[in-house]
Order: sequence, then structure tokens, then C-alpha cells
Amino acid sequence: MNDKIFSARLVFAKNLRKLRQSRNLSQEVLAELSGLHRTYIGSVERGERNISIDNMERIAAALNVDIPDLLKITDS
Amino acid sequence: MNDKIFSARLVFAKNLRKLRQSRNLSQEVLAELSGLHRTYIGSVERGERNISIDNMERIAAALNVDIPDLLKITDS
Repeated sequence: MNDKIFSARLVFAKNLRKLRQSRNLSQEVLAELSGLHRTYIGSVERGERNISIDNMERIAAALNVDIPDLLKITDS
Repeated sequence: MNDKIFSARLVFAKNLRKLRQSRNLSQEVLAELSGLHRTYIGSVERGERNISIDNMERIAAALNVDIPDLLKITDS
């Protein structure tokens, strides 16, 4: 299983950045709202972190969306 | 944020067990299909694990569903 390409974290990363920016929120503000660190938000948005479901829930709650909204595959 | 109740992992846990059983798969077989450990699958199904997005993707792929299918809130 070591050659598995993980796409979900990249979809999450892309959707998170897009949604955060559409809300005109900085990484700092989202970090504050979600109780996470700014550097952590940044690394999640770059797809570098294997984010846990609890932290996905924290971020989704801070953005007032459901987790699946951050996992949708979009064209743009 | 320490008093946050994490519901997503419980929703995931419940949906996973329900879907696995509906496919007549044992935890052992799902573990084999997903490249994870049987005991890990069991603890995820009890909501004990803060599962990562990569492992959610492994399990979803093994069940041939999308991650959001395992995050849906259902009545039953």
C-alpha cells in the first residue's frame, strides 16, 4: 500500500484554501476561529498534513460548513 | 476548545460499521483490503480513533465509496 497516492488530502487542501479566501479570512484568523495554529493551517492548505477527522471538524465548524463540503471534487 | 464534542468521528464510526456489515465483510477482511490492522478498524468503528484523512481514503477505497459517503448523518 506504500505506493498509494492520497488525493483526498489534496482535495481538502484546495477546497479549504479556496473557501477560506472566498470568506476573506487570513490563515491567522481561521487558526484563531478553529483553535489551531496558523502554521498548521498553512501546511494543511499545501497538502502536507495528514489531517485528522477531529481537526477537519474544527476547521469545518469554524467555516460553518460540513466536512463533506471540503471534500468535494471541483473543476476549478 | 477542549470541551469540543467531536461528532464527525462518531458519524464515521457508525457509517463504517453499517456499510461494512451490509457488505458482509469482517473487520479482518476490511483490514486486509485497506492495508490497515484489524484492531485499528475495530477501534475506528468504536469512535476511539482520531482517524486521518489518508486512512479514511484507504477505507473508502477498500469499500468502493467516497469519503463523504462515510460522513453522512443518517437516521437509523
